[in-house]
Amino acid sequence: MFVSDHLGINQQHHLTIGGVDTIELAEQFHTPLFVMDEDKIRDHCRQFRHSIEEYYQGAGLVCYASKAFCCKQMYRIAKEEGIGTDVVSMGELYTAMSVDFPVEKICYHGNNKTPQELEYALECGVGRIVVDNLSELHLLNDLAGNMGKKAVILLRVTPGIDAHTHQFIRTGQLDSKFGLAIELGLAMEAIKQAIQLPHIVLDGIHCHIGSQIFDIDPFEHAAEVMLSLIAEVQTTLDFSLKTLNLGGGFGIQYTDSDDPVAYDCYMKRVSEVVKKKATELGLPLPYIIIEPGRSIVGPAGITLYTVGNIKEIPNIRKYLAVDGGMTDNPRYALYQAEYNFLIANRADAPKDDTVTVAGRCCESGDLLGEHIKLQSAQVGDILAVCATGAYNYAMSSHYNRVAKPAVIMVSGGVAKEVVRRETLEDLTRFDI
Amino acid sequence: MFVSDHLGINQQHHLTIGGVDTIELAEQFHTPLFVMDEDKIRDHCRQFRHSIEEYYQGAGLVCYASKAFCCKQMYRIAKEEGIGTDVVSMGELYTAMSVDFPVEKICYHGNNKTPQELEYALECGVGRIVVDNLSELHLLNDLAGNMGKKAVILLRVTPGIDAHTHQFIRTGQLDSKFGLAIELGLAMEAIKQAIQLPHIVLDGIHCHIGSQIFDIDPFEHAAEVMLSLIAEVQTTLDFSLKTLNLGGGFGIQYTDSDDPVAYDCYMKRVSEVVKKKATELGLPLPYIIIEPGRSIVGPAGITLYTVGNIKEIPNIRKYLAVDGGMTDNPRYALYQAEYNFLIANRADAPKDDTVTVAGRCCESGDLLGEHIKLQSAQVGDILAVCATGAYNYAMSSHYNRVAKPAVIMVSGGVAKEVVRRETLEDLTRFDI
Repeated sequence: MFVSDHLGINQQHHLTIGGVDTIELAEQFHTPLFVMDEDKIRDHCRQFRHSIEEYYQGAGLVCYASKAFCCKQMYRIAKEEGIGTDVVSMGELYTAMSVDFPVEKICYHGNNKTPQELEYALECGVGRIVVDNLSELHLLNDLAGNMGKKAVILLRVTPGIDAHTHQFIRTGQLDSKFGLAIELGLAMEAIKQAIQLPHIVLDGIHCHIGSQIFDIDPFEHAAEVMLSLIAEVQTTLDFSLKTLNLGGGFGIQYTDSDDPVAYDCYMKRVSEVVKKKATELGLPLPYIIIEPGRSIVGPAGITLYTVGNIKEIPNIRKYLAVDGGMTDNPRYALYQAEYNFLIANRADAPKDDTVTVAGRCCESGDLLGEHIKLQSAQVGDILAVCATGAYNYAMSSHYNRVAKPAVIMVSGGVAKEVVRRETLEDLTRFDI
Repeated sequence: MFVSDHLGINQQHHLTIGGVDTIELAEQFHTPLFVMDEDKIRDHCRQFRHSIEEYYQGAGLVCYASKAFCCKQMYRIAKEEGIGTDVVSMGELYTAMSVDFPVEKICYHGNNKTPQELEYALECGVGRIVVDNLSELHLLNDLAGNMGKKAVILLRVTPGIDAHTHQFIRTGQLDSKFGLAIELGLAMEAIKQAIQLPHIVLDGIHCHIGSQIFDIDPFEHAAEVMLSLIAEVQTTLDFSLKTLNLGGGFGIQYTDSDDPVAYDCYMKRVSEVVKKKATELGLPLPYIIIEPGRSIVGPAGITLYTVGNIKEIPNIRKYLAVDGGMTDNPRYALYQAEYNFLIANRADAPKDDTVTVAGRCCESGDLLGEHIKLQSAQVGDILAVCATGAYNYAMSSHYNRVAKPAVIMVSGGVAKEVVRRETLEDLTRFDI
């Protein structure tokens, strides 16, 4: 019935998340409200971690891609579950460091890291800096030299695969702001230079082929391409690239039309390809890193809103306005992203109405969804939007000077605040 | 040469704003940096204000639409220039109140104001609450009654005109999350009810026909439609609607292809239509409110970035990556909005290169512009993006846990910080 199995309906006909009544949460913590199921997040971490243990003899690391959802508690969870994390800014790294995240399990990404950021990453002793381009490579070497350190790096390469949703393109995807194209010889050139640089330790290579991918084929193909590059480096440069970071992009179920792969299947099938290809090429098995973000937190989260007004424009459409919108979830405005909606206080009533869910911002484009099948709604109802755990809080803004909602996590039937709601005072804190 | 006349080039070949060297600003305040010309903002406030004085005997009010750019200093400027403001949230109202903004000159907008917000607006004594719909009307009446107050309101109506950029549609635009359609009789019904409600004082009507409009015709037409409604209310209900709020939407120059109207022309031509139509219909002249937002702050602002790396993909394109992006300006990602770009430290060099300006976020869509004509750039150059004063800082996010830039205002050749740059500590302030 639901896009995620941790959602249910109790005897009061209320939607529950992790067994907790969402209407009680809305009353206690007010709306709009992000609610995440911590047990579900932990379960996802374990599924990915176990898949490496089971199918790849544990010779790898799951790094949670924290750009999907970043806060102190999320790093605590990743740390406790024994996985690593990838960060993409000083802000993310600072947050991870603030909960003593094991620094050796951190990958630092970004197409345009500033000198200040690279220095901070070196200072923290980040496990692997994923270098995006040649100018960053030389900058990092200089900075590491000045600081008397060695920078352990992966080089981000573009394997010529572009995979999104249900299709992928085997060639192409040269046109990216990220990485160094294998096809153009840029990856090999950077590898040659990295090996020579005195303050750089080249540990391996990284690729990321897309987002919200529902097939395993493109991951298999990427692994093959990356292993071929590792073999070429071994043969031509007599250098062993030890680590292969295959990135993330595993799809999740937003609506009934999405059909995600079971999380452990990725490593199961990719492991087979890696082992086969490595044997074929006479290579030792690389250490593998995978970077799930959306797939760990996305399905674990929901957003609760209060229905404020309902406006029916005869023969055109019915607008249902809620007390949030593009400020807490800009994904419909940005990508026309689809979600599953329901009235949380009548969760088992039939969805016999069709509405447009509008946000509260003074902007026509501030919608959360159109042509949405929904229970007949009334003012004061609580609307739940499912699978909002990734890229919702993370992308939230203060447009219209709207305060950011709180983030609640439920675990073992108990709810706790992990990010507090902003106050009016918070909104003017930076004004002089 | 520039999209706005307060930009110039000094002897060092540096871009200047309000006479201040942008390279010195970047050195002093770092990048990314929002820089606004306070004198220009004040000039725009005065142009609109004087247009009402000159063409409409001062019988009106300019209300700055603060959703375009909201901070304490902006409200101080509006207050000092004797104009009003429109606010769309408790956060904006709170900010205005914090600098003792004259409350009688505030309009409070929104398609879905919460009971808490309406109570706050009543408590502050906001000059006019712009009521969007029937349920809000009755809620406000109840709340005002409970508080022993009268709510002075305008009703937001949709006049059946949809004007954006260079075209407008005279009918249609019934399909809006905002307001009450005249054409469907909803506006008249709400007016009838508002007149009857004991705690409501119906002062007038409001409409808003679009954004970034380059013609005056649709404003003239909207004024005609609105006056016809005022006349109908006078005739059928014997009730005088005193205030006519015509909203905003005046276009600005983002690129050479934009051709905005001089600011005082709106009131010049709209005044004529209002006077003619009022005479024709036997109505007293209404008090007019206009709500410019983008046109006051948009052209006054620029954003400065540091060029971090330049990636040329042969035969495909050249990416120029900067230290900001969709976190400080999501308008390209949202609307493919176009801007004028230049290298601020070689501002008078020929634009002999074509680049894609990429942001620093880990997201493919994080671009600021494509096919951009630009001076040949080098790492470390300062890139200026023009006309970013509206809907840039206002829409900024913490995606990737990137800290928000500072906002600087220059006036009389002197620069001062009006919104301070966020620190790493600020980014974790709300995490528990």
